[in-house]
Amino acid sequence: MTDPVDPPEPHAHHPAQPAFKVTPWEVKGKIDYDRLREQFGTSPVDAPLLARLERLLGSPLHPLLAREIYITHRDLPQVLDSYERGDPFFLYTGRGPSGDIHLAHLIPFELCAYLQRKLGVDLWIQVTDDEKFLFSGAGGRHDLTLADTYKLGRDNLLDLLTVGFDPKKTHILFDTVSIPTLYPLALEVAKRVTFSTAKAVFGFKNDNNIGSIFFTAIQSVPAFLPSARAHRPIPCLIPCGVDQDPHFRITRDVAEGLGYPKPALLHNRMLPGLLGDEKMSSSADRRDNAIFLSDSPKDVQRKISHAFTGGRATVEEQRRLGATPEVCSVWALWRSRFAPEAKEFEEITRTCRSGELLCGECKARLVPRVDAFLAQQKEKRAEVEKWIDSAIEGAPHK
Amino acid sequence: MTDPVDPPEPHAHHPAQPAFKVTPWEVKGKIDYDRLREQFGTSPVDAPLLARLERLLGSPLHPLLAREIYITHRDLPQVLDSYERGDPFFLYTGRGPSGDIHLAHLIPFELCAYLQRKLGVDLWIQVTDDEKFLFSGAGGRHDLTLADTYKLGRDNLLDLLTVGFDPKKTHILFDTVSIPTLYPLALEVAKRVTFSTAKAVFGFKNDNNIGSIFFTAIQSVPAFLPSARAHRPIPCLIPCGVDQDPHFRITRDVAEGLGYPKPALLHNRMLPGLLGDEKMSSSADRRDNAIFLSDSPKDVQRKISHAFTGGRATVEEQRRLGATPEVCSVWALWRSRFAPEAKEFEEITRTCRSGELLCGECKARLVPRVDAFLAQQKEKRAEVEKWIDSAIEGAPHK
Repeated sequence: MTDPVDPPEPHAHHPAQPAFKVTPWEVKGKIDYDRLREQFGTSPVDAPLLARLERLLGSPLHPLLAREIYITHRDLPQVLDSYERGDPFFLYTGRGPSGDIHLAHLIPFELCAYLQRKLGVDLWIQVTDDEKFLFSGAGGRHDLTLADTYKLGRDNLLDLLTVGFDPKKTHILFDTVSIPTLYPLALEVAKRVTFSTAKAVFGFKNDNNIGSIFFTAIQSVPAFLPSARAHRPIPCLIPCGVDQDPHFRITRDVAEGLGYPKPALLHNRMLPGLLGDEKMSSSADRRDNAIFLSDSPKDVQRKISHAFTGGRATVEEQRRLGATPEVCSVWALWRSRFAPEAKEFEEITRTCRSGELLCGECKARLVPRVDAFLAQQKEKRAEVEKWIDSAIEGAPHK
Repeated sequence: MTDPVDPPEPHAHHPAQPAFKVTPWEVKGKIDYDRLREQFGTSPVDAPLLARLERLLGSPLHPLLAREIYITHRDLPQVLDSYERGDPFFLYTGRGPSGDIHLAHLIPFELCAYLQRKLGVDLWIQVTDDEKFLFSGAGGRHDLTLADTYKLGRDNLLDLLTVGFDPKKTHILFDTVSIPTLYPLALEVAKRVTFSTAKAVFGFKNDNNIGSIFFTAIQSVPAFLPSARAHRPIPCLIPCGVDQDPHFRITRDVAEGLGYPKPALLHNRMLPGLLGDEKMSSSADRRDNAIFLSDSPKDVQRKISHAFTGGRATVEEQRRLGATPEVCSVWALWRSRFAPEAKEFEEITRTCRSGELLCGECKARLVPRVDAFLAQQKEKRAEVEKWIDSAIEGAPHK
């Protein structure tokens, strides 16, 4: 599979410290994904791997795979090997509750829904209301109560599950609710992780609270739970944002000592913010950086019309020199979701680059697509409401 | 109340670091309780306080109070004030599961049973199977699985509850079983405790596991739970070994921020080991240091006949100079349990000191008392088995 986007540049030497920082709680600076791959020690999702996925999943591949949004992995081929030998794996992804779900949050869930649909595999979703509580209030974040984070988590799930899962194969671990399931395995993990390790991986300091230090043990559990219950190793694949990799490095490090397979990972790049930020995020002072599932058509119109693009200073210049899709937050939306057909996406990319498509036209074309998508998701929430509680491990309704 | 034992010595200056160390996981060196009180900043259980307790509880006071086994406290008068105003307090004590319950383990439970009987107060007992798991294997300790620590914890409870509680007023939090109750409050505590604090209080290092660092948050919960449930402040009194004080310093520090009263503490001194150790403990290589509830009459005979005493090198010398009860592990048993009548205890102490009572006679007199006590406790286990599971919060039987 060839892709015109983001041609890899040679990076023979990286003597200096990278000018970016990627942790589960902070993304700083402009991410150089090649350097991040080296820094994290992950493998690229390259042409042979994509060809293999295409054979397994059918052509065309989901845009999230075909368009280099899932860019790196750990041990994905091992999971595919075992699947092809007849041993199914399971998927695990999660959500740290937040005020509103935006389009970037959907990415791992959409990949999971696609893989579940294509391969019939089980999915475990973890909702980390405990984490959100423990980390809220730090570094100027809005302080939340546990009641807040529970409520946010359940509401977030209603949005996330609209991407379409099989209720029979979808299992939810909602940390404060599912804690009887999580705690014993979390203790097994925690016993094998020193403060030194947590410090090295997450950059913790002495003033971090003792709950935030322990939390990574809770986040490891879903990777092991199905194996623990089945009393046999079941491979796990975790699609997640690349910023979550540090957690799962710990999970992978302790796996063998616990007698479970190391979970494989598949990392997506960060979806850029509409204000030009490296990561679409939902901080209160930059609401226009993200498109939320709760946004009205008016919000969408405003956000997209003001969105940061790869266009030129003047129409004349753009017609002559063309625009740069790779830096454009609007193009990133086409790429990840709103041009599912390869033909349309290629046309948009080509005409953008050539100067035929101006930013105003491109935005005007995108707005109704986003509106339609959001309207459809809002309707699906009622469907999800019917089965959500029966999927939460330990919930009184189950 | 006057007591002939341990006359306080003047300690005007303590320029050097104390030559002992007291943490929940280690007692090292000979404890100087006056210096420990200064070091911890606790208050002495002095004559006016004992007189007040005697008025409240009736005369004679329980030997554990009357004989300076409970030696220091934090805020006990405040709990008594509020009790006398008509606001009942509750008791909280706990157990870290271990191989076998020995006589020292019973001390806080006996005080709780006595206070419950006299004042009709509720008791919360925490069984920290998680803690035992997290700390086992470290520092050369025997490594235990969670299944081991659960089993030990339940078996320990059968022994501990034989001291006689009111099943209607006795509530058990068994950490891995009761975790749905414990976890949300533990998160509230954990959010308010930094690694720096845990490090300063417990002496944690970077190689401590992240579970052991978090654990103190779990141990704080029972002090707050009744207030949290009642939506009003209910004072808490924690009888515990002085080595547990560090945990509850953290509990007290976070209490006000959470809107709960600071728990009061009442600390017992360590019961000395029969081999002359500062603390009766149950390490595998020093089984004869402790009398276990599971010991046979043969074990008791052997352990007591070899026990470290305050006697002299020869009979002649002892007759002439007398022995020193304060350093004697056998006298410590009389003091804490086996001479409940003040008259007998005074007679033993006096004749020991005068040289009339030789160590062999004293030991021969103690052995049948211990045998009778152990036999009686073994019988009571069957009674406890009838109600134990219905007292465990979250247990399937409840």
